[in-house]
Amino acid sequence: QGILERLDAGEIVIGDGGFVFALEKRGYVKAGPWTPEATVEHPEAVRQLHREFLRAGSSVLQTFTFYASEDKLENRGNYVAEKITCQKVNEAACDIAKEVANEGDALVAGGVSQTPSYLSCKDKTEVKAIFRKQLEVFLKKNVDFLIAEYFEHVEEAVWAVEVLKESGKPVAATMCIGPEGDMHGVSPGQCAVQLVKAGASIVGVNCHFDPETCLETVKLMKEGLQAAKLKAHLMSQPLAFHTPDCGKQGFIDLPEFPFGLEPRIVTRWDIQKYARKAYDLGIRFIGGCCGFEPYHIRAIAEELAPERGFLPEASEKHGSWGDNLSMHTKPWVRARARKEYWENLKPASGRPYCPSMSKPDGWGVTKGARELMQQKEATTEQQLKELFQKQKI
Amino acid sequence: QGILERLDAGEIVIGDGGFVFALEKRGYVKAGPWTPEATVEHPEAVRQLHREFLRAGSSVLQTFTFYASEDKLENRGNYVAEKITCQKVNEAACDIAKEVANEGDALVAGGVSQTPSYLSCKDKTEVKAIFRKQLEVFLKKNVDFLIAEYFEHVEEAVWAVEVLKESGKPVAATMCIGPEGDMHGVSPGQCAVQLVKAGASIVGVNCHFDPETCLETVKLMKEGLQAAKLKAHLMSQPLAFHTPDCGKQGFIDLPEFPFGLEPRIVTRWDIQKYARKAYDLGIRFIGGCCGFEPYHIRAIAEELAPERGFLPEASEKHGSWGDNLSMHTKPWVRARARKEYWENLKPASGRPYCPSMSKPDGWGVTKGARELMQQKEATTEQQLKELFQKQKI
Amino acid sequence: QGILERLDAGEIVIGDGGFVFALEKRGYVKAGPWTPEATVEHPEAVRQLHREFLRAGSSVLQTFTFYASEDKLENRGNYVAEKITCQKVNEAACDIAKEVANEGDALVAGGVSQTPSYLSCKDKTEVKAIFRKQLEVFLKKNVDFLIAEYFEHVEEAVWAVEVLKESGKPVAATMCIGPEGDMHGVSPGQCAVQLVKAGASIVGVNCHFDPETCLETVKLMKEGLQAAKLKAHLMSQPLAFHTPDCGKQGFIDLPEFPFGLEPRIVTRWDIQKYARKAYDLGIRFIGGCCGFEPYHIRAIAEELAPERGFLPEASEKHGSWGDNLSMHTKPWVRARARKEYWENLKPASGRPYCPSMSKPDGWGVTKGARELMQQKEATTEQQLKELFQKQKI
Amino acid sequence: QGILERLDAGEIVIGDGGFVFALEKRGYVKAGPWTPEATVEHPEAVRQLHREFLRAGSSVLQTFTFYASEDKLENRGNYVAEKITCQKVNEAACDIAKEVANEGDALVAGGVSQTPSYLSCKDKTEVKAIFRKQLEVFLKKNVDFLIAEYFEHVEEAVWAVEVLKESGKPVAATMCIGPEGDMHGVSPGQCAVQLVKAGASIVGVNCHFDPETCLETVKLMKEGLQAAKLKAHLMSQPLAFHTPDCGKQGFIDLPEFPFGLEPRIVTRWDIQKYARKAYDLGIRFIGGCCGFEPYHIRAIAEELAPERGFLPEASEKHGSWGDNLSMHTKPWVRARARKEYWENLKPASGRPYCPSMSKPDGWGVTKGARELMQQKEATTEQQLKELFQKQKI
Repeated sequence: QGILERLDAGEIVIGDGGFVFALEKRGYVKAGPWTPEATVEHPEAVRQLHREFLRAGSSVLQTFTFYASEDKLENRGNYVAEKITCQKVNEAACDIAKEVANEGDALVAGGVSQTPSYLSCKDKTEVKAIFRKQLEVFLKKNVDFLIAEYFEHVEEAVWAVEVLKESGKPVAATMCIGPEGDMHGVSPGQCAVQLVKAGASIVGVNCHFDPETCLETVKLMKEGLQAAKLKAHLMSQPLAFHTPDCGKQGFIDLPEFPFGLEPRIVTRWDIQKYARKAYDLGIRFIGGCCGFEPYHIRAIAEELAPERGFLPEASEKHGSWGDNLSMHTKPWVRARARKEYWENLKPASGRPYCPSMSKPDGWGVTKGARELMQQKEATTEQQLKELFQKQKI
Repeated sequence: QGILERLDAGEIVIGDGGFVFALEKRGYVKAGPWTPEATVEHPEAVRQLHREFLRAGSSVLQTFTFYASEDKLENRGNYVAEKITCQKVNEAACDIAKEVANEGDALVAGGVSQTPSYLSCKDKTEVKAIFRKQLEVFLKKNVDFLIAEYFEHVEEAVWAVEVLKESGKPVAATMCIGPEGDMHGVSPGQCAVQLVKAGASIVGVNCHFDPETCLETVKLMKEGLQAAKLKAHLMSQPLAFHTPDCGKQGFIDLPEFPFGLEPRIVTRWDIQKYARKAYDLGIRFIGGCCGFEPYHIRAIAEELAPERGFLPEASEKHGSWGDNLSMHTKPWVRARARKEYWENLKPASGRPYCPSMSKPDGWGVTKGARELMQQKEATTEQQLKELFQKQKI
Repeated sequence: QGILERLDAGEIVIGDGGFVFALEKRGYVKAGPWTPEATVEHPEAVRQLHREFLRAGSSVLQTFTFYASEDKLENRGNYVAEKITCQKVNEAACDIAKEVANEGDALVAGGVSQTPSYLSCKDKTEVKAIFRKQLEVFLKKNVDFLIAEYFEHVEEAVWAVEVLKESGKPVAATMCIGPEGDMHGVSPGQCAVQLVKAGASIVGVNCHFDPETCLETVKLMKEGLQAAKLKAHLMSQPLAFHTPDCGKQGFIDLPEFPFGLEPRIVTRWDIQKYARKAYDLGIRFIGGCCGFEPYHIRAIAEELAPERGFLPEASEKHGSWGDNLSMHTKPWVRARARKEYWENLKPASGRPYCPSMSKPDGWGVTKGARELMQQKEATTEQQLKELFQKQKI
Repeated sequence: QGILERLDAGEIVIGDGGFVFALEKRGYVKAGPWTPEATVEHPEAVRQLHREFLRAGSSVLQTFTFYASEDKLENRGNYVAEKITCQKVNEAACDIAKEVANEGDALVAGGVSQTPSYLSCKDKTEVKAIFRKQLEVFLKKNVDFLIAEYFEHVEEAVWAVEVLKESGKPVAATMCIGPEGDMHGVSPGQCAVQLVKAGASIVGVNCHFDPETCLETVKLMKEGLQAAKLKAHLMSQPLAFHTPDCGKQGFIDLPEFPFGLEPRIVTRWDIQKYARKAYDLGIRFIGGCCGFEPYHIRAIAEELAPERGFLPEASEKHGSWGDNLSMHTKPWVRARARKEYWENLKPASGRPYCPSMSKPDGWGVTKGARELMQQKEATTEQQLKELFQKQKI
């Protein structure tokens, strides 16, 4: 059964987690470029991660084609061999995802994401041509459906949906925006409306914000669709980081991005709460993005097991709400083998010299660096750094 | 070259990270029992993790035989198939580790750890027989050297070293103790002396405490050896969690153990500081334990690259101190591409409703649960829970 | 010169701090009732506090007549002697304030605040009669002007202004609301418009929220007046507590109210920032409310000394931005004798087991206690407590 | 009855709070010099503070003669008039304290504290002459007993006790040290022994550390006395600030000292716990120092009311454990009218951008500024500041 048949039948579809963050920690992706040449260089590592998500309960495996557009890969500079072409990366990604999907009952989704070309030229024809190149691979490899994800501007997301829609396959579209809307100020509700009108059957958000915030944004999308009398399935794939303090552009502007985010990582219990809230909000495609590890996906599957009627395979190694701790030798650890304990725990950071919140950089430099950025040609890197130094609190 | 030749020559030996925590998150190990049947059930997952550590810079791959003693595996109850015997688990662990070690220049160490038998009977002959069973496999598979690790009582650790020493192979021994010493009150210095006298060529600590605390403990061991005019190589494999607030028994008594430790996870920069401090203290076998992911091991290898003369393979996907961020599109993210930034960052938790420190359970219940535990036969689980409920702050 | 002459001439008028909190700590006011019978019982204590504020720079001394309406004082129950009548409390308050004002160059403002009668009956005639009783004393004692302060409902505030206006004296009016507006949902802008139309020459906010939030609210009032083409002077008298986490009803709903607010107390440097921001926003009547001690008022006077042209008397015991520390014996304390140090300090709480934010009670119990409260007659105190117990996290 | 008769009879004696911090906030004392010329300049302010402590339950009023030695007052520079001599300050302090003591049942204690002369010359004769000057005033004014307090070096404290002992009046002696002992490394136990041998009938600690730490130090003193088979009454007058993070020299080295300590202020409930612990430890002279306001002293008197048999006067304005909140209009505030609530509350700071702990300055600069300080003559203030700037995190 295809993705729409499943969703139309009321099934809960569980997504997977973000590959670039997980594989950066495993040593296969470079932070900054965040490109997926590992599909060619180290297929075994990509395959293993897919397997873990499948085992954790994912009903959809996304091809590891994030930032795999030709224009982005050309930026990869001197650390990826010449022979690793855009086509090879995308093909390998499809092959690996399909191979693992066949080991279970998962669908494969081919994915495209925002392009550097949009920001530099904004030429519709040119940008669409870039998406079309990836789409050709997805069609050749016959993926089950398509996802346009991680768009900061709805205009570009709409172009992506239009291209993907040419294939005739179902299209999902998620933006990396918060409740304030896209970078041009289009509200979440309006974004959803435009995406559905462009052909998306599933809309929602991914990345950039924590689960709580993402659900708020999807709620605004839902209300926008209702007001416009449009119908679509809802989807959410948030960060696995707590980001109550981030600004409009999300976690990228937090001072901890990307190498100091550890204290913000959400627990499995946070994810169970997220899964429940997402379900109650009417979202039926529930997954994750950066920071999600297999055990976070398993937490979604376990929370919604009563509704779905089954547990994921990886639950054979996990008790519900920590109940396997009842076998521990120490009584005070045994006393943690219950839902109330984990539900109410306010976990300490062990970092008494650190604050609980940060001030986003991009937000704190509005009057300085943002203006400078707009007149970039007149500014040296050195000037920018001095500016930042000066403004740092 | 063997482990002792390397260490005697002044080489820095980098260990690997803890398998049970890493594989729990990946879905292959059950928290609580923490047993390694995955070597038989899912060899591909174990193999991949070994590969990631090797690629991150590990010069030693430990067989995944933690808690793989026969008496411990018998506790595994109804979730592991009967046919997965102790011998099979240990053999598979050796095979996988050796296979991956051959892909690089790593040594394989067979490992034993503390046994339930010691706590229940304390019979020397019986406990030694258990270690000997694992040792037979290690000899059959011809591992390079042996590690006795994760001992809370030096008496049992000494027994383990004595058994392993029968093989003629080099033996390392680490205890999971803090500066206060072992559970019977033997000081770290005395523990080190006893272990060396029993035949260990390398001594140190692993698990239970954060890097800072572990180094403090190894320093006490070093001083104990100096006072006794004994010589041995030093080793440290700490947690990758900040635990300034834990009591004598380490992180197990923290309320966050084991499912709410996320905010305590150390950053790669914390690890670089740890690696430098360990080196300055004279430790030459530097690795990690629970919480260590491949990128933490890579951080050790990168920090000590000047001394070692080379970077690990996985550094091809990592810039020194975040310098790859200099290619980011946003100037305020580019401004993070420098050592001073990451060195001085005090990362926020994003959790304003959580404290920075916890009170260890086992410490907070001294007068209550600990006494009860000593008269366990007279106490029902229910009574214990009520006690805890009442004492919870 | 009267208050309006001063403000019309562009002078900065500095208010005083909140008496009930300051005198509660000194032992003369009971938390809960918060009534000012101390004017009769312990005039020396009230007099001394007035003197300290005068010396700290207050240009206005408010009579200590908070909650001194007859209906409120009748609630005082069994702990105040019968003979301490409403009239005596108000008269003594005027006498003491005038006595101290004559020691310097301060104005005396007679003050009224919200009444229990409004909440129980909402009868305009009855409520106005209560305000008129206090006004009679203020006229007899010939105070310089009048302040209607601490109103949660603009309707009642308007009635108070109308009564006070009958006197012919200038009237100021402040509400204890945040940016969300009054308890009936009237926006700050609308509140300001109604108060000015009722006759207030000065409008603003006092109490319930921290300086930051209060300024936000006054800004909304200013915009509301501009939109309505009305003119009035602006006034702000916030809490001296940090309350970023409070709900619509302000700090009363915070779990720390009123006996655990210590960690939230603002520093003198926080107040200097507040004074500067208030000034930049066009506010010219700048004072404080609960939590403000004399040194907080002095901080306003010191920050605005350049604009005012003089320092307050109490500055003879205070250096600017800590510069008197330059005489300290320890060099690292001497190094604190500079503005940048105190401006940028992020003061630690010394409370590692406490969080940085709380969840407001009244906000967290919306579905439970609030509904119960609306059907109060059917609910015993015991039931309410159980409810709270159950809901407490 | 004198102080020793009371203590010998098993009575609990309650001290007062620190005057310099309280009067600095009220505008009468300058931070840095911390000298008590207010006794001459503003006797009404000093008198009022004495009254508040008396009313709060103090059984001892200390003359406000802290740092009132002649050599210290000579440092007062250009901000105190010439005519305010050491003798006048001390005489006025005695007069005011006696006047207020006569309004109740309190004793008056004349107090001396450490001198700049000790640090600069260490000449016994010279330092003793300084103490003797103050003692002459105390004898002329016939105070009830004497306290030598706030000594960092036991040697100087012994000299002070010896001088005070010449008077024939009872002498108490407290040092501002922590568990690590005095600045020359003399342990608390040894300090206590030396003080008792010099003639002190009461020994203990005051200032520099929080209640918790002070009790730890007094406990060590008690054990020292027991080991030496000496008898003395115990006394503790700690800070009203939480300082778990301070170094050997106490809160002065904390970056927040003295103008950013607000988030560390202890609650009345913290003080009740302190009073109980102090009592259980056998301490019978229980008071406070810097940061203590009248309501903190009242908290001691309320906690120990069952043992003492009466409440202080100021309790007429205070319910036990917040029980007066039961009259509040909002049910969720009423729900706070109980001991368990306040006992267990972990108060939030409302400061999400601040840490919970600091690194003491003096501790963090050991290798830098401390060495520099020892070669002070060769170092300009500017060099010191640069050093600090550089070392600041």
